[in-house]
Amino acid sequence: MASSRIITLTTDFGVADHFVGTMKGVILGIFPEAKIVDLCNSVGSFDVLDGAMTLAQAYSYYPPDTIHLVVVDPGVGSARRPLLVATSRHYFMAPDNGVLSLVMEKEERIAVRHITSEHYFLQPVSNTFHGRDVFAPCAAWMAKGVEPEKFGEEITDYVRFAIPKPKQVAERAVKGVVLKTDRFGNLITNFTPENAPYVFADGAQVKISVGQAVAAYLSTNYAQGKPGECFAMLNSMGYLEIACNRGSASHLAHAGRGAEVTVEF
Amino acid sequence: MASSRIITLTTDFGVADHFVGTMKGVILGIFPEAKIVDLCNSVGSFDVLDGAMTLAQAYSYYPPDTIHLVVVDPGVGSARRPLLVATSRHYFMAPDNGVLSLVMEKEERIAVRHITSEHYFLQPVSNTFHGRDVFAPCAAWMAKGVEPEKFGEEITDYVRFAIPKPKQVAERAVKGVVLKTDRFGNLITNFTPENAPYVFADGAQVKISVGQAVAAYLSTNYAQGKPGECFAMLNSMGYLEIACNRGSASHLAHAGRGAEVTVEF
Amino acid sequence: MASSRIITLTTDFGVADHFVGTMKGVILGIFPEAKIVDLCNSVGSFDVLDGAMTLAQAYSYYPPDTIHLVVVDPGVGSARRPLLVATSRHYFMAPDNGVLSLVMEKEERIAVRHITSEHYFLQPVSNTFHGRDVFAPCAAWMAKGVEPEKFGEEITDYVRFAIPKPKQVAERAVKGVVLKTDRFGNLITNFTPENAPYVFADGAQVKISVGQAVAAYLSTNYAQGKPGECFAMLNSMGYLEIACNRGSASHLAHAGRGAEVTVEF
Repeated sequence: MASSRIITLTTDFGVADHFVGTMKGVILGIFPEAKIVDLCNSVGSFDVLDGAMTLAQAYSYYPPDTIHLVVVDPGVGSARRPLLVATSRHYFMAPDNGVLSLVMEKEERIAVRHITSEHYFLQPVSNTFHGRDVFAPCAAWMAKGVEPEKFGEEITDYVRFAIPKPKQVAERAVKGVVLKTDRFGNLITNFTPENAPYVFADGAQVKISVGQAVAAYLSTNYAQGKPGECFAMLNSMGYLEIACNRGSASHLAHAGRGAEVTVEF
Repeated sequence: MASSRIITLTTDFGVADHFVGTMKGVILGIFPEAKIVDLCNSVGSFDVLDGAMTLAQAYSYYPPDTIHLVVVDPGVGSARRPLLVATSRHYFMAPDNGVLSLVMEKEERIAVRHITSEHYFLQPVSNTFHGRDVFAPCAAWMAKGVEPEKFGEEITDYVRFAIPKPKQVAERAVKGVVLKTDRFGNLITNFTPENAPYVFADGAQVKISVGQAVAAYLSTNYAQGKPGECFAMLNSMGYLEIACNRGSASHLAHAGRGAEVTVEF
Repeated sequence: MASSRIITLTTDFGVADHFVGTMKGVILGIFPEAKIVDLCNSVGSFDVLDGAMTLAQAYSYYPPDTIHLVVVDPGVGSARRPLLVATSRHYFMAPDNGVLSLVMEKEERIAVRHITSEHYFLQPVSNTFHGRDVFAPCAAWMAKGVEPEKFGEEITDYVRFAIPKPKQVAERAVKGVVLKTDRFGNLITNFTPENAPYVFADGAQVKISVGQAVAAYLSTNYAQGKPGECFAMLNSMGYLEIACNRGSASHLAHAGRGAEVTVEF
């Protein structure tokens, strides 16, 4: 199994510093056969929700026994614990700050351990770069064959959050929020078919306002929209998205992460 | 052959979202031994020409049987077809929007297939992320050993464009265009030794204007230029480039992609 | 040894052009079994010091016999030489412009060769992209098993610089400089425990000014700082850093790379 075990990286370290290259070196120094995959290293700085969403969209496609290393860690050096989480198919190493919340929401059975196995850490452990000193070496040792139970005891009081749900503000009006702006300027909201079926119902007439833009209809793809016009769609992540054909809805709306979204129906 | 087959990724998905990490997961979930190489994931958003140019510069160096996966796909979810293109050495999977035009220009023999093998797709296929649902799984199955003819029938009516050529506007003046601004701010134009030999002739005296800058001579390297001064050169891609030693010609000229370039000689 | 030899890439080519994808193609075309690792491809453009610092933080963690390919090369095409440097554990290929200075400072024994083995280059060698034509093919041939001495003769007159040291400007005041701004906006200065022990002494009272910000105390981690407040810390790289909890010290201070830093103690 360990012959070419996959370790994915999801971090907010960006691509312009040594952080990610250093973590890769630590992993390969311990286990040169590791197969390291950049899942996403440009999660928004300090943005635990963005990290949680990015990971949740991608992790399940990876093969069994993949180790997902997640370092979005504004609390590094404080009392927050490092975690090892096992699901039925995958392993996750991450700080105990909720960044695994959406994985936990999707998975039926999880075992969560507090990583305390300091003999696997790089010593001395810094207060500012546990990606290098704690998470990378533990992931490498695990890829090399160390059993999960060797990293620490199971706990149940880990941090976990839920994505905020839209709130009804009038008989036929509901307010939500922009969770993320993607590379194309699409505004990803917290409306889903589960929490807002009235938006996605056949023949539904909706008006969706965000910032200075209004989306007056739902499209099934990007190419149908007229240039310079915002529309809504159920995106490939399962969220309602405000988009624009070959343009940036975020620019058109002058709105981004955290902006209020009003749906009238 | 399939033991460590290379799949390269060329996309406009950027590095800050889950898109690329998801595609890698899909590939590795189907064929964990695939060797995935990020060729370039920050092609300009929706910019099919930029994708075509980036790919054309790099693909030919890869070893035989490499599969180049190219997802610059503003028409995703519309009627545009997914393609599998075979040359004498490589395979390409891409939307039928011209992004392979420059590969087709360089290669003598190509076979183009319309990918219709839905049993290899991730179901249900979304309307907005065929990188995940169509291209990544097909590339993985191909890397795993599925023969090209299993993906669909050959077609001949695929989309193909040519890079616009410079146009003569006076006896000794020709107008072209900036095709791309690179990371250093170099302005890459559509003048080449083939379509504009007068620019590159020994002893040629040229004046090249773009935006607010004028390049008055051709250099053979960057280091010869004076700081703050624009000059022209035949770059490593084979195009005329307006550059600046340790500075950005794009900033100096206040010009970028699409700007008009005038060569007087 | 050559079965899956690691080649790391440290360049200022960025992620939006073909440069890195082309170098990977050249390496894999010569030696398909190479294990290519992106150490960092977004070193500041033309910024040899940034390249040196990034590499110096990461290289030592990689396994023995790793080949570190470093292309931050504003002098490409001029007389500057390509180098192959061997330390007791690693190999480095880089232009002779000082980008390996900090590696040289850390390593006791180094052997430096001038790469002259043109039969390993891609011909014709361009004047503008030695990453493709010189460095990538030489690294691939070396990974494939070519001995270091086959690439050229040893030299001793290579370029090497030292990071500037802080200077005393008054009895209890010392001036230094910001060497780098990282992804989070942390300002990394040239003060270290070796050259400025008075800053890091137990109970030291210091006032650190940079741009429009003042840091009045040293913290041991990021999470202790109050939002919107700058503080100083000894960072994981071993330098004094001006930081801000979940914010950008660079934005708060209106200062970045090259800014003057004054420490009063």
